[in-house]
Amino acid sequence: GVLGSGDFARSLAIRLVCSGFKVVVGSRNPKRKASLFPAAAEVTFQAEAAKKADVIFVAIFREHYSTLCDLADVLAGKILVDVSNNTEVNHHKESNAEYLASLFPACTVVKGFNVISAWTLQSGARDGNKQVLICSNNQEAKRTVAEIAQVMGFTPVDMGCMSSACEIENIPLRLLPAWKIPISLALGLFLCFFTYNLIRQVIHPYIREQKNKLYKIPIEVVNTTLPCVSYVMLSLVYLPGVLAACSQLYYGTKYRRFPDWLDQWLQHRKQIGLLSFFCAALHAVYSLCLPMRRSHRYLLIETAIKQAVEKKMTIWVEEEVWRMEIYISVGIIALGLLSLLAITSLPSIANSLNWREFSFIQ
Amino acid sequence: GVLGSGDFARSLAIRLVCSGFKVVVGSRNPKRKASLFPAAAEVTFQAEAAKKADVIFVAIFREHYSTLCDLADVLAGKILVDVSNNTEVNHHKESNAEYLASLFPACTVVKGFNVISAWTLQSGARDGNKQVLICSNNQEAKRTVAEIAQVMGFTPVDMGCMSSACEIENIPLRLLPAWKIPISLALGLFLCFFTYNLIRQVIHPYIREQKNKLYKIPIEVVNTTLPCVSYVMLSLVYLPGVLAACSQLYYGTKYRRFPDWLDQWLQHRKQIGLLSFFCAALHAVYSLCLPMRRSHRYLLIETAIKQAVEKKMTIWVEEEVWRMEIYISVGIIALGLLSLLAITSLPSIANSLNWREFSFIQ
Amino acid sequence: GVLGSGDFARSLAIRLVCSGFKVVVGSRNPKRKASLFPAAAEVTFQAEAAKKADVIFVAIFREHYSTLCDLADVLAGKILVDVSNNTEVNHHKESNAEYLASLFPACTVVKGFNVISAWTLQSGARDGNKQVLICSNNQEAKRTVAEIAQVMGFTPVDMGCMSSACEIENIPLRLLPAWKIPISLALGLFLCFFTYNLIRQVIHPYIREQKNKLYKIPIEVVNTTLPCVSYVMLSLVYLPGVLAACSQLYYGTKYRRFPDWLDQWLQHRKQIGLLSFFCAALHAVYSLCLPMRRSHRYLLIETAIKQAVEKKMTIWVEEEVWRMEIYISVGIIALGLLSLLAITSLPSIANSLNWREFSFIQ
Repeated sequence: GVLGSGDFARSLAIRLVCSGFKVVVGSRNPKRKASLFPAAAEVTFQAEAAKKADVIFVAIFREHYSTLCDLADVLAGKILVDVSNNTEVNHHKESNAEYLASLFPACTVVKGFNVISAWTLQSGARDGNKQVLICSNNQEAKRTVAEIAQVMGFTPVDMGCMSSACEIENIPLRLLPAWKIPISLALGLFLCFFTYNLIRQVIHPYIREQKNKLYKIPIEVVNTTLPCVSYVMLSLVYLPGVLAACSQLYYGTKYRRFPDWLDQWLQHRKQIGLLSFFCAALHAVYSLCLPMRRSHRYLLIETAIKQAVEKKMTIWVEEEVWRMEIYISVGIIALGLLSLLAITSLPSIANSLNWREFSFIQ
Repeated sequence: GVLGSGDFARSLAIRLVCSGFKVVVGSRNPKRKASLFPAAAEVTFQAEAAKKADVIFVAIFREHYSTLCDLADVLAGKILVDVSNNTEVNHHKESNAEYLASLFPACTVVKGFNVISAWTLQSGARDGNKQVLICSNNQEAKRTVAEIAQVMGFTPVDMGCMSSACEIENIPLRLLPAWKIPISLALGLFLCFFTYNLIRQVIHPYIREQKNKLYKIPIEVVNTTLPCVSYVMLSLVYLPGVLAACSQLYYGTKYRRFPDWLDQWLQHRKQIGLLSFFCAALHAVYSLCLPMRRSHRYLLIETAIKQAVEKKMTIWVEEEVWRMEIYISVGIIALGLLSLLAITSLPSIANSLNWREFSFIQ
Repeated sequence: GVLGSGDFARSLAIRLVCSGFKVVVGSRNPKRKASLFPAAAEVTFQAEAAKKADVIFVAIFREHYSTLCDLADVLAGKILVDVSNNTEVNHHKESNAEYLASLFPACTVVKGFNVISAWTLQSGARDGNKQVLICSNNQEAKRTVAEIAQVMGFTPVDMGCMSSACEIENIPLRLLPAWKIPISLALGLFLCFFTYNLIRQVIHPYIREQKNKLYKIPIEVVNTTLPCVSYVMLSLVYLPGVLAACSQLYYGTKYRRFPDWLDQWLQHRKQIGLLSFFCAALHAVYSLCLPMRRSHRYLLIETAIKQAVEKKMTIWVEEEVWRMEIYISVGIIALGLLSLLAITSLPSIANSLNWREFSFIQ
């Protein structure tokens, strides 16, 4: 059964019908709404739908839950699936599912399907996340809903008892929260270092020697900026650990909570590290592109011509050769090690490591 | 208990014995077959084996299920595990497991272990997929079989009730079905663009100016072909979404099914996108290799000599320098963004994103 | 309830309190230890704590389990969670959890939380592995503990019945055991080939022609060494499969166990293959860096000057051009294929392939 006739209710009904379920839709105005639902779904009054169905998806807004109170008797003993979402994180004091359960104490309430969009429901779980997070205090009801999700082509994930409902309801509102601070940090650092390098490599030679080196901006200036950002970010990954250890030594206990800013910082280390790796990898690609550029070619040929005209047969500078060889080989080794770190941060790899192995690699 | 004496039955018996289970094998000719099984497994007649065991693996072909009907009384109340596979997708109307269940209504039938090869069973789950997909209408039986799989070193995955049996039986027959169309598409596009570039860069100069530029085929022609393929594939990822939206606008409803060809296309977007990324990445590597080639070196030296002999001291062309710098930096940024998209298509990353985050990144 | 007042007991209590549980701690000296625990946790004598709690975490060493025997009556019927670890793999004959269960036959023992460090418990599951492996012979108790783990922010993983306890207890002691042999092998091969290439490219020219080519060591010698290592490792991935097939043909049976060394070798194929890919990828990066070096630049200019002075206008050698073009393009294709193999070895990708697809890609 599906109560409601909104977008989500329709997509849910379509999908349930396609998956071979017998669907009855409860609407306050079944005649007008019937045309919106697939022909195989029976559209009727709410009370009638509630009577006929065993598992009822409540696809109406939290604000209208109380309008269902008339149906309390008919709903008694049935499984209610709360599929609602909020518009803000922690909007209400209790989660929608717990609120529904408090209105219908005779029903078994299961939270689920709210992480799935109406579009995914309708078109099938094609790409992205196929997981349907489910929680309930009743094992049997949870299992029934999990099996419905399975038949519909989703992967049910047991999230335990009803107290997880609040967490599940907050998930669809999340937009990469852990990345906001690290990305602003990286952008800020990039801007600072870019300005410094721009002044040093382009503006300064122009003012002092009237040399036009503007062509350096898109690649060379960016390429000297990236490793600076990467280094600072990498140090910001390891610095909070040191600060935390100092704070523990200072207070003489491991059991004192860290100040909030340090706690936040400790929590963002993984993201900062991945951005550091991203900058390092970009720096590697930029550096590898240097000999492809026209400007590199022209400078090379000009040097050759000048030497040839001056009949200077040798231009080998042992120190410069060695410096470059060592720069490059150390750079490659560092990139290789950073890649290993980045790979172990993939969830499926991290899950196969115990913490001893994880800290060994770190 | 294991009924049957084929390859799979033997591997199963070996593995069960190694995992510490007490195994009894039921064969129609126990004397002749006993030597094929490990010494720790008792090989006896089918009726006797069925009597002694609580969980019975039915390792015989679907065609011979009916020969077990004499054992119906002995098997009553026991757990039968259907491990069979078909030779064709959807070969029979009902799945093997459902057919077995209809023959033995007094037994609890569990589908499982069919996705594991005899070789993996015998040698242990060393590499590749360790998952054993299990389904049954009986929770208790499913749990028992899941625990046997766990002890054998596999990862049991609950696939819900018996209606999933058909899907589970089709899995081992699958050979990257979602990749067939995208790969043929990529190969077709590659051939077209390769022919065009071959004519333009090699055959045309040869006919017009008698210049032998055959050496360009392995790298330069391939390298100009790859980005064309990549671009067209990328546009094919986003085109069906636009077409779908147009079709919805035209029909004035979101609830009309798309035509089959559009539906198929929408379903292959992820694979087309990954191939587009693969071509783009290969193009990047090919481009980076350009300055390593002998031909690049020779051309450079020849230009230098020509300039030196003609005493032309400057060869700098500001426009060409800028064009190349911009090409390269835009290329690197595009590759970085495509890499992010490719990384989020990894199952373990996609599962940690909600659909809002997923569509934000897309 | 938490029995014990060590590091782990304290972290566990802190975390349980933070997750909203009512916690009672049982200590042999509650007055002295109370200050170590958060204020919200009640610290009392062991017998009293055991009486008040339904789920009791036994956070004491295996050696002291017997000191709890006085509490046997109070503990009867309760769920005991064994969180202990050993200091050596397979230190005792039976696992700690099974030992605890044998001491308290009236209790339900669940193994769990031992894979989590005290630090992770306290600071929250921020990075790395969030999985809590749980096993027990009692489904209900396992579910209760799984739900506690869920509320604490971890991902409970059902590992089946008590016989898995031993395996779970060995996990935290593991330090990349499958990588030890492959890494030593790779290092050994690297040393051999490096020495050979050092003699060939640096020492030999020095002795014969007094040419100082020491600058070649950090990049060129390493770069010629890496593909040798990669090749030999790749052949070592496929060789044991051939040997295994030969052994099967020789003995005329698929059901004979392989000798131990071959078995070990077969088990390490994945790691050897990944190291082979790592060397190949490093070789690619080193090769791409070659034209960036000062030495490359100097050699190029010197050749140009020499040719210009001698007025030799053409230096094109068709054969050398072709050789290099083919080397590079074959190298890129090989790297692309190896990358595909490496990607399919990621756990989350391997789990989405059936064995037919897996062996097709291999």
